[in-house]
Amino acid sequence: MDFTPLRTALADVVAIPVTPYDATGAVDRTTYRDLLRRLLDGGVRAVTPNGNTGEFYALTLEERRLCTELSVEEAGGRAAVLVGVGQDVATAVDAARHAREAGAQMVMVHQPVHPYVSQDGWVDYHREIAEAVPELGVVPYVRNPLIEGAALAGLGEACPNVIGVKYAVPDAARFAAFARDAGLDRFVWVAGLAELYAPSYWAVGATGFTSGLVNVAPKLSLDMLGALRAGDYAAAMKVWEQIRPFEDLRAARQSANNVTVVKEALAALDLCRRDVRPPSRLLPEPQRAEVAALIQGWAL
Amino acid sequence: MDFTPLRTALADVVAIPVTPYDATGAVDRTTYRDLLRRLLDGGVRAVTPNGNTGEFYALTLEERRLCTELSVEEAGGRAAVLVGVGQDVATAVDAARHAREAGAQMVMVHQPVHPYVSQDGWVDYHREIAEAVPELGVVPYVRNPLIEGAALAGLGEACPNVIGVKYAVPDAARFAAFARDAGLDRFVWVAGLAELYAPSYWAVGATGFTSGLVNVAPKLSLDMLGALRAGDYAAAMKVWEQIRPFEDLRAARQSANNVTVVKEALAALDLCRRDVRPPSRLLPEPQRAEVAALIQGWAL
Repeated sequence: MDFTPLRTALADVVAIPVTPYDATGAVDRTTYRDLLRRLLDGGVRAVTPNGNTGEFYALTLEERRLCTELSVEEAGGRAAVLVGVGQDVATAVDAARHAREAGAQMVMVHQPVHPYVSQDGWVDYHREIAEAVPELGVVPYVRNPLIEGAALAGLGEACPNVIGVKYAVPDAARFAAFARDAGLDRFVWVAGLAELYAPSYWAVGATGFTSGLVNVAPKLSLDMLGALRAGDYAAAMKVWEQIRPFEDLRAARQSANNVTVVKEALAALDLCRRDVRPPSRLLPEPQRAEVAALIQGWAL
Repeated sequence: MDFTPLRTALADVVAIPVTPYDATGAVDRTTYRDLLRRLLDGGVRAVTPNGNTGEFYALTLEERRLCTELSVEEAGGRAAVLVGVGQDVATAVDAARHAREAGAQMVMVHQPVHPYVSQDGWVDYHREIAEAVPELGVVPYVRNPLIEGAALAGLGEACPNVIGVKYAVPDAARFAAFARDAGLDRFVWVAGLAELYAPSYWAVGATGFTSGLVNVAPKLSLDMLGALRAGDYAAAMKVWEQIRPFEDLRAARQSANNVTVVKEALAALDLCRRDVRPPSRLLPEPQRAEVAALIQGWAL
């Protein structure tokens, strides 16, 4: 298998679409596709249905399959689709096979939520999933600072289709060390903490970054990408400064309102309902106005 | 509804049974029941199938239903059954209804694994589950130190069937404050970090504790319970000192081998296979001998 096209696709803004709900609380298929089309029209070329910004952990297995299918249909060759899969191995393997059947090119493996993760068991977990879909690119999502680069190196040796990593520990020096211990050139390194960490991660080895903000303002994310690719950190930091208050609001209180704020902004733009599912919650009224004010300067 | 009998059942050692696998890797039904019978014969009166020690996050939905059914059948009125449920609300509600149909008396709600938990959303999450099974006792499992007692107080006001709490933050002073803010008498307080934290939690308001160790040595857990009920902290700490090396081994490296060590001990006693599922992993040989040596003094 030649994974070069998939590696290229990961070295980009990897958008994590929100999952909009209708008035009954069900996934809103039409709006899901409309929002995705807006991203594609805006220049996005890689999307991850069933990521954390898509409320992965609040969706049923059936709803996740639906979001996978809607994404592949709407992407229609315009963007690479990287489906979020997770939970127990059997469920993750089922979801990965479904992603393949639906026509997706890659899966992003959510970090195991199991409370007792051994380093070797972490490798076993990803290996079983990767071996079930050898034709798909596989991208582990690493949020656990205890996982060492050497473990990923071993996984990469066993599984040629593990081609990229979404690294999301808020420590750029640790990321730099992890990437080198695992193999800087063996994997594509995607900064998994979005725009606020993208410049510092980029400086030490990342060539792509994930984004939830891109749902609201594709141009801003792509502007930052363009600046980073050009090595123009000053221009990247201009974008950083512009989006900081919005991203800070999402990060506050251990990210309590991470998705809520994105959907609130989309609601302010009349693009979808603001509803989120428990354990997330709508913003109180005064904060809604704050979000609307924040994005007013963005010329969307 | 009179929840007094269920409240009484929680003020006890709440055993979290392991889930044994057969040679093919499937849940071993016969051994599951054998291990449970050993607990019941040993004096255990409350069990939680599908808890963390039961590898909840490594089981499929079908396997969890099986463990629920096996537990209720084997308990047969000898013990209260408190079924672990979790994930997205719809899945948790399905599991809670299944627990009710199977004949369980209570559900223990795993902490939401969703990365974006707002305080109000946390209440919404538990409320939707509790309202779906008003006849069952409901016990939230709190591992997140950011959840405040006031949030639980609100949940308790809305849902009379939320009768107990499994609190598992490694800080007894925080637990003492949380319990008082939520309502010390309104809920039964179960120390959720097992024997090593049970005495300190007991001193400030707990009247029960969970245990994984009890799978190996029911007598030791019940000895500690008896000592705590008698207010004999010196006797409780004798047990504490005896089990400390075993529990320390389970807790090492962020609990990497938490269940692995329990199953290793059960394998040394020839009670079940040692297998665990990813992201857990078997112990290397030298550590297996260490576990066998640790439990030799326990007269099992």
